[in-house]
Amino acid sequence: MKNPDLDAEPRKRKPRSKPRGESTEQRYARLIAELRRQFRLGSALQLLEWDQETLMPAGALHERAQQIGTLAVLVHEQQTAPAFLALVDELAADIDQLSSAAAVDVREVKRHLDRERALGTDLVRARSVLQAEARAAWVSARRENDFAALAPYLEQLFILQREVAQAIAPERDAYDVLLEEHERGATRAGIERTLQELRDGLLPIIQRLSAHLEGHPPAVSVLCGHFPLDAQRRFNRRVVETLGFDFNRGRLDESAHPFTIGIGGDVRLTTRYDERDLRCGLFSSIHEAGHGIYEQAFDPATLGTPRGTACSFGVHESQSRLWENVVARSDAFWRYWHPRLGESFPSLAGCSFDALLLTVNEARPSLIRVEADEITYNLHIILRFELECAMLDGSLTIDALPDAWTELSDRYLGIVPQSHRDGVLQDVHWASGDIGYFPTYALGNIYAAQLWRAAELEIDSLENGIARGEFRPLVNWLRENVHRHGQSLTPHALIEAATGEPPCVGPLLEYLHRKVDYLESV
Amino acid sequence: MKNPDLDAEPRKRKPRSKPRGESTEQRYARLIAELRRQFRLGSALQLLEWDQETLMPAGALHERAQQIGTLAVLVHEQQTAPAFLALVDELAADIDQLSSAAAVDVREVKRHLDRERALGTDLVRARSVLQAEARAAWVSARRENDFAALAPYLEQLFILQREVAQAIAPERDAYDVLLEEHERGATRAGIERTLQELRDGLLPIIQRLSAHLEGHPPAVSVLCGHFPLDAQRRFNRRVVETLGFDFNRGRLDESAHPFTIGIGGDVRLTTRYDERDLRCGLFSSIHEAGHGIYEQAFDPATLGTPRGTACSFGVHESQSRLWENVVARSDAFWRYWHPRLGESFPSLAGCSFDALLLTVNEARPSLIRVEADEITYNLHIILRFELECAMLDGSLTIDALPDAWTELSDRYLGIVPQSHRDGVLQDVHWASGDIGYFPTYALGNIYAAQLWRAAELEIDSLENGIARGEFRPLVNWLRENVHRHGQSLTPHALIEAATGEPPCVGPLLEYLHRKVDYLESV
Repeated sequence: MKNPDLDAEPRKRKPRSKPRGESTEQRYARLIAELRRQFRLGSALQLLEWDQETLMPAGALHERAQQIGTLAVLVHEQQTAPAFLALVDELAADIDQLSSAAAVDVREVKRHLDRERALGTDLVRARSVLQAEARAAWVSARRENDFAALAPYLEQLFILQREVAQAIAPERDAYDVLLEEHERGATRAGIERTLQELRDGLLPIIQRLSAHLEGHPPAVSVLCGHFPLDAQRRFNRRVVETLGFDFNRGRLDESAHPFTIGIGGDVRLTTRYDERDLRCGLFSSIHEAGHGIYEQAFDPATLGTPRGTACSFGVHESQSRLWENVVARSDAFWRYWHPRLGESFPSLAGCSFDALLLTVNEARPSLIRVEADEITYNLHIILRFELECAMLDGSLTIDALPDAWTELSDRYLGIVPQSHRDGVLQDVHWASGDIGYFPTYALGNIYAAQLWRAAELEIDSLENGIARGEFRPLVNWLRENVHRHGQSLTPHALIEAATGEPPCVGPLLEYLHRKVDYLESV
Repeated sequence: MKNPDLDAEPRKRKPRSKPRGESTEQRYARLIAELRRQFRLGSALQLLEWDQETLMPAGALHERAQQIGTLAVLVHEQQTAPAFLALVDELAADIDQLSSAAAVDVREVKRHLDRERALGTDLVRARSVLQAEARAAWVSARRENDFAALAPYLEQLFILQREVAQAIAPERDAYDVLLEEHERGATRAGIERTLQELRDGLLPIIQRLSAHLEGHPPAVSVLCGHFPLDAQRRFNRRVVETLGFDFNRGRLDESAHPFTIGIGGDVRLTTRYDERDLRCGLFSSIHEAGHGIYEQAFDPATLGTPRGTACSFGVHESQSRLWENVVARSDAFWRYWHPRLGESFPSLAGCSFDALLLTVNEARPSLIRVEADEITYNLHIILRFELECAMLDGSLTIDALPDAWTELSDRYLGIVPQSHRDGVLQDVHWASGDIGYFPTYALGNIYAAQLWRAAELEIDSLENGIARGEFRPLVNWLRENVHRHGQSLTPHALIEAATGEPPCVGPLLEYLHRKVDYLESV
């Protein structure tokens, strides 16, 4: 998508004094050139990381870490070089002389840099060392089911992230400051209200689900069996390409933990196949394709600038969840793919459509967030949000975390983990120092339901088209209403502009009620 | 291999004045740290290039070129930063205070940097632009068989490379200066003598071959047929691993033009398969494995320093040619692999050993260098060396090049190309500005024959071992006698130390006579 503002003329104003005879427009051009230069170095860094997760031979790990460290330090030095910071400050002072499009770039770059430079070099270094150590400790703690081994690292990470927040904005709530890194404009109070509403709204849905499940013990899925990897690779590629992911500017590979990474417009998805269960690879691929279709949207000319960068973590997740859940678990989606499954997997040639649709929509409270169904998923997020807020403000100690986890799990999901591995040690986020990250997953689900409802109203016969394999109208609608804005709008403003409503939980709750209606009907 | 000198104590000397209170040893430590930092950035550059040739989606080409350009400029800036140059100069002035191992690093880094800084920024930029344009022009000129389209670029490249040589060492022969970039210590006069001897020695061998060929028209090879790619991939990996390539620190992938690249001790080979001819992929893989086994030899602690870098292009090529030709076309090699071929390729289960050995040793004058057999290969090099010398000194104009090519091809090979594509447009080297590169291919063949003869004398039952699949003794011998030296020795000194003789053509000529003996005997 072309960003129509990119080549717009800046509004003319009386020139101010320019010590070096450089106009604001020329300064802005210098900013863009420098951002793109830094972005290209950043792309090299992304490739080092992508390669490490997908192809790198094991013996290269140590040197790879050094390569990444060297390049990361260099990019950081360039982003915080005094001349660059001065350029950004000068432009920010003259922001009213810039076109509205250029002003977005200056505003967002300055916002990011103001956070960065507020942190002293010592704090940046201490954080990155602690994160690396804590992540390594998490890997072994999880393997050994040993929460006590991780606890001291979590303790230190929460202390350090309080310091980070304090350094950035001493007058503001620490959680708000950390949250804003992931979701611009969001606040703890706002998230609290939203998740409270969501929790209240989910209660009757979960009650309906539980009542339904009493008569329906788990059954073997029609998508379980034996599905050779090569056939899965071909099928997943076909699905992802049909949805709208452009393989001329992207790839689909495999890694232990699926992810999406952009290497300068070259967008790479990874997935993880299970030969015994087709759903594992397929829904991972579609989830990542949602991220990837978003990443492929940006005009190459804006890559590396805020207008060529995704809006927020929550909006990014809305794209992955929209495709993975709302689209890929729908009746219409499987109307198209059901007759095609047998072409790739002969054992599925005669499978029943009804059994297929049911198996991709089964729901049941479970312990592991990343394996949770759409109905119970958000309860995992609410639990984590409450716990991380309490740990950050000190009202919950790290030592008391496992018990608090068990208590909330029982309250929200009705089940409790029998091991730390299935409980408090399941996610890497806190051990990575990511506080204020989990809520963006719930925001993604909320936004996705809102976006889908708006798209349904605006696109003629959206579902009928999907049942015929026509995904382009939905991609185009997302291009126009979500993707093309880059960071021009806040997440809140973007959702409001796209859907006519501010972020709200109603559409998600209605969508989940309809899911239970469906489950009850079969 | 550990380089035993690495941790050696520097020889003690009376300290000289050190304005910043820094000892020579401390300065040297700073040099090494900076070299390794630059090397790690260079590794990121290598990965960008490797990925471009193997996996990158086509639509990413433009941005990838920008990424590579940005990082290359940055590495060049760091290599020529005044503070870094001053450090190298200071160490060079105090070189007698360093251990002999450290002195190698300082000497070679200074040699390289003295060349780099002699070139003004304008010349560096002009060269890199012209090279990029000329390579693109070569691709289309070759496709269109249109020499006139490339001629103006070649004209400019030879003028520019004369300027480069002039800037580096105005008092020296231009060809010598360009040659030294690829083969330290080599001179045009020395190469001329060597290639003259080689040409004279090849004449009777070619005559014998021609006489033999009169009664032996080309036959269909037993290695032609249908060999599925996946089976070839598995077989090639097995062969390369058996030779001694370490897949814990390397990979084998595919690209249009096979190559080997090191990404900081992680060494990646590529090959190119032909489903109809097993030889194509196999000999490419083994050739690249020869390069790769060399690249994997360096102590990780010396990576990025001259002692952890290959000696020269000629010595590098000696490794690839030794494995590809001397080893992998030998009777002993196929004694081991013949009974194993059928495990990967059922159609070869009953193939005759004699037919197999013959088909990997067939020789016949041909037009394309990269497809030439061992016996005629060096004539292709002699032809190119004579032509590039004449073009550089102006005695041959670019316009007259195609006719001169035809004349030499007729004289040396007895055949003439019917198109420029099969003649003067077949190689990219000149269009890349690489003058003084071709001779290193012949040097590689010469060194390989010398090294093999020395190894045969020093390793007990070398060929019997190979017939049992024991390649480790040869790898170890190369580690000890070639690899571990890095750039401590010149190519000349290295070959003399390894073989007891300076570089000489005798062993290669004897080896090729034996090849004709064999062909005559079957």
